[in-house]
Amino acid sequence: MAKPKSAITPTRSENFPEWYQQVVRNADLAENSETRGCMVIKPWGFAIWEAIQRYLDTRFKATGHENAYFPLLIPLSYLEKEAEHAEGFATECAVVTHHRLEAEKDENGKTRMIPAGKLTEPYVVRPTSETIIGAAFARWVESYRDLPLLINQWANVMRWEMRPRLFLRTAEFLWQEGHTAHETKEEALEETHMIHQLYSDALRDLLAIPVIMGEKTEAERFPGAESTLTVEAMVQDKKAIQAGTSHYLGQNFAKAQNITFVDRDNKEQHVHTTSWGVSTRLVGTLIMAHSDDDGLVLPPRVAPQQIVIVPVTPKPESRDAIIDACEALATRLREQVYAGENLRVKVDTRDLGGGVKKWEWIKKGVPLRVEIGPRDMEERKVCLQRRDQPANEKSFLEKEVFLREVVETLDSVHHSLLDRARTFRDENITKCSDMADFEKHWAESNENPGWLLTPWAGSREEEEELSKRLKITIRCLPNEKQDEAEANCLLTGKPTTSRALWGRSY
Amino acid sequence: MAKPKSAITPTRSENFPEWYQQVVRNADLAENSETRGCMVIKPWGFAIWEAIQRYLDTRFKATGHENAYFPLLIPLSYLEKEAEHAEGFATECAVVTHHRLEAEKDENGKTRMIPAGKLTEPYVVRPTSETIIGAAFARWVESYRDLPLLINQWANVMRWEMRPRLFLRTAEFLWQEGHTAHETKEEALEETHMIHQLYSDALRDLLAIPVIMGEKTEAERFPGAESTLTVEAMVQDKKAIQAGTSHYLGQNFAKAQNITFVDRDNKEQHVHTTSWGVSTRLVGTLIMAHSDDDGLVLPPRVAPQQIVIVPVTPKPESRDAIIDACEALATRLREQVYAGENLRVKVDTRDLGGGVKKWEWIKKGVPLRVEIGPRDMEERKVCLQRRDQPANEKSFLEKEVFLREVVETLDSVHHSLLDRARTFRDENITKCSDMADFEKHWAESNENPGWLLTPWAGSREEEEELSKRLKITIRCLPNEKQDEAEANCLLTGKPTTSRALWGRSY
Repeated sequence: MAKPKSAITPTRSENFPEWYQQVVRNADLAENSETRGCMVIKPWGFAIWEAIQRYLDTRFKATGHENAYFPLLIPLSYLEKEAEHAEGFATECAVVTHHRLEAEKDENGKTRMIPAGKLTEPYVVRPTSETIIGAAFARWVESYRDLPLLINQWANVMRWEMRPRLFLRTAEFLWQEGHTAHETKEEALEETHMIHQLYSDALRDLLAIPVIMGEKTEAERFPGAESTLTVEAMVQDKKAIQAGTSHYLGQNFAKAQNITFVDRDNKEQHVHTTSWGVSTRLVGTLIMAHSDDDGLVLPPRVAPQQIVIVPVTPKPESRDAIIDACEALATRLREQVYAGENLRVKVDTRDLGGGVKKWEWIKKGVPLRVEIGPRDMEERKVCLQRRDQPANEKSFLEKEVFLREVVETLDSVHHSLLDRARTFRDENITKCSDMADFEKHWAESNENPGWLLTPWAGSREEEEELSKRLKITIRCLPNEKQDEAEANCLLTGKPTTSRALWGRSY
Repeated sequence: MAKPKSAITPTRSENFPEWYQQVVRNADLAENSETRGCMVIKPWGFAIWEAIQRYLDTRFKATGHENAYFPLLIPLSYLEKEAEHAEGFATECAVVTHHRLEAEKDENGKTRMIPAGKLTEPYVVRPTSETIIGAAFARWVESYRDLPLLINQWANVMRWEMRPRLFLRTAEFLWQEGHTAHETKEEALEETHMIHQLYSDALRDLLAIPVIMGEKTEAERFPGAESTLTVEAMVQDKKAIQAGTSHYLGQNFAKAQNITFVDRDNKEQHVHTTSWGVSTRLVGTLIMAHSDDDGLVLPPRVAPQQIVIVPVTPKPESRDAIIDACEALATRLREQVYAGENLRVKVDTRDLGGGVKKWEWIKKGVPLRVEIGPRDMEERKVCLQRRDQPANEKSFLEKEVFLREVVETLDSVHHSLLDRARTFRDENITKCSDMADFEKHWAESNENPGWLLTPWAGSREEEEELSKRLKITIRCLPNEKQDEAEANCLLTGKPTTSRALWGRSY
């Protein structure tokens, strides 16, 4: 079949990174700005983030967490307290050193602004908030009665990126960061597992992305954490994206920041803390997971508009009646509920050609497109097109049948995307227990040859050497593969029941 | 009557600013941080902001605005483009000059972090986003078909404050900033008026605060604006708080940033832009408007919990039954809807004395407190206390009557607060047309002697001289007082139909 005229250029197989940029651009999701590495999130992209926020915020609150807000700027002295953490973020911190500007006229009479008012202690723009939230926790916690402390923050953070990529890796990004403090290690670990599961569910149920749940190795942990749980997604070029993490921080931050409480036996103890987060990176993950050579594909629960109705009005005399029919259909659709929210429906009455509109909504990834023309109106039918099916496929339905089945249809789009992504992922994870096969896999001309699951009992140093040499990482030690039949470690030959999942990643 | 033991110290009349701090502290709303001038917004305070966000966000969307997100950091060169704007914010800009840190060991072996990676062009942390959003608008707008462009951003901003005060004036604050671009001046002005009314309605309907709507004089306008509309609230020390502003920016920013479009006659034109915002300052306004000597008083629509149910359990044998009755009541209450949201109800089962709990919820400002004890349970009654009435006042109601009337009762709390605030304000605005009376009014020992409404036809310079000398400002030229009977200007004696409202302010 010839490539449709309005599809994305290049295709995924021609040039995946460039295809990604073009999908983002054509769907009007975001764009680069003149602030180095920072993006502008445009309304269609931001509405996807808002849907993610609504879903997560509801679930965080239902599990006892409360939102709060902490300062953007962190005193340097806070970072210095936890050395491993500080070193982990030092290379990517934006630093505020002055607190005002002075206007100067240059030789051409133009006004130039010069930094003035040098600060005695500089601040960094938060790359993450463990240290500043820990300082608050130290003030707030006195007794075991104040625990657990379950706090979440929706915020912007900055990590100066040398190779930014829209949504996936930007100098400024939006995220939520949960921070909790507990009496015991067990309780803190339970929190990290609960959130780990919550993230996995969110990816599956909201974004239709199946993830591998597992734990990071020491080499890949969050700076300062004792354990890091991760949800890893495979996107269509077979690369991995770390989509969310949940950290058990032990008593490291509590000791560095003196977060103590009087326990049930009247003894002073340090709390056990956790932190966990997901970011606007999820939007990038979503795009790479589902979109196709026609553009963005959105799972319905996260789509800013779930259904677009396009009136087809070839004759002026029937135009008003058709538009009325479309609006009436939209009103009835909006009364229906899918996944706890009223359906989001747009009627596109703009004065543009039908083909132009159709391709715009395809590229924007709207799950269902409905057309109503003069004949459909007469026959009380609608023409339905699904974004998870080829652009030229359509079905004609009785309007009442469409209305009765629409929620089911949306759910079917969700599940077809989820199933497709799961099949793709499973086909691209291969077991491997032979070092020669392992090396050959990564050496193949194909840049991203899928993931390998291997017996692994190597040391941190051995892992780092192998990762560097083959440009791969252990994405995680998958939860479901930590109790396997004993096998020999790929590298060291040591017997192990543990398995590691290796891949290339964003 | 003796002062109740648990009330706020000092009282409003003893020391209003210190009373304010203590209300904030006792209600657990926010606290200062070690980042200069920046606050930590604690869960109870943040939940109030979330209620404000929900209310406004719904209305912004209903009036055609879309949310988006723009970079935190603004290149200095952007600020330089609009000179008046740049000079207006120059003295309070946090400046980012470096993009990484280097760890150094000091003489004691302690790690010190030193700013490194100096930027060729520094950035300021946004004090407001006209310039960076304008740069995006210049990319987005080509034709009149792209207009109006109606964008809102929820964001943090920084203005380095020399005299910070929790919520009212902090170096970092949270706000929404609307930015719109239009074909014509008329359309842009209409937008500013629509938002002006929306803000006034929000203050009245959500926060139970009556405002004076008016226009700022040239001296008090937003830097770079052609007109600034304001909603001015009077709080209990008779000072004014500028609670929200809506600016018509003319073509100033459009010309500085080259935001042009091809109009309906195929001519290139500059757009007309507006911007408008409210911030976490609304939370401070709310506190100062309604709270009393017992602590915070919250209008029901913005209260994180609207009703707290306290089980009174003197005997262990009836404890479980009473708690069950409270939970059952809470469940039935949560099914009810007030102002478009399900009722927010908490059952306080903590193992604390009844008096401790009662005073905690009083200080946190919860609109309705309900107690159920053994006898109430037997008689199917509840004991109801309203936060807008004295702490010792209570009424006993049939439970079914309470359930039937609860929405009405909440609304009655809202209106009693609104009426009280309106009466107070109206009693403290005095007409004045004589300069001697005017000077005497401000010279009185009372620091905040209420507002004065005067005929005014002075120049900008005359206004500034008077403002500086008497430590007052023209809060606004009230909309409703711009078409009065001709009178002589207070200062110049020139005949005028215009009136100015003068006051001291936060």
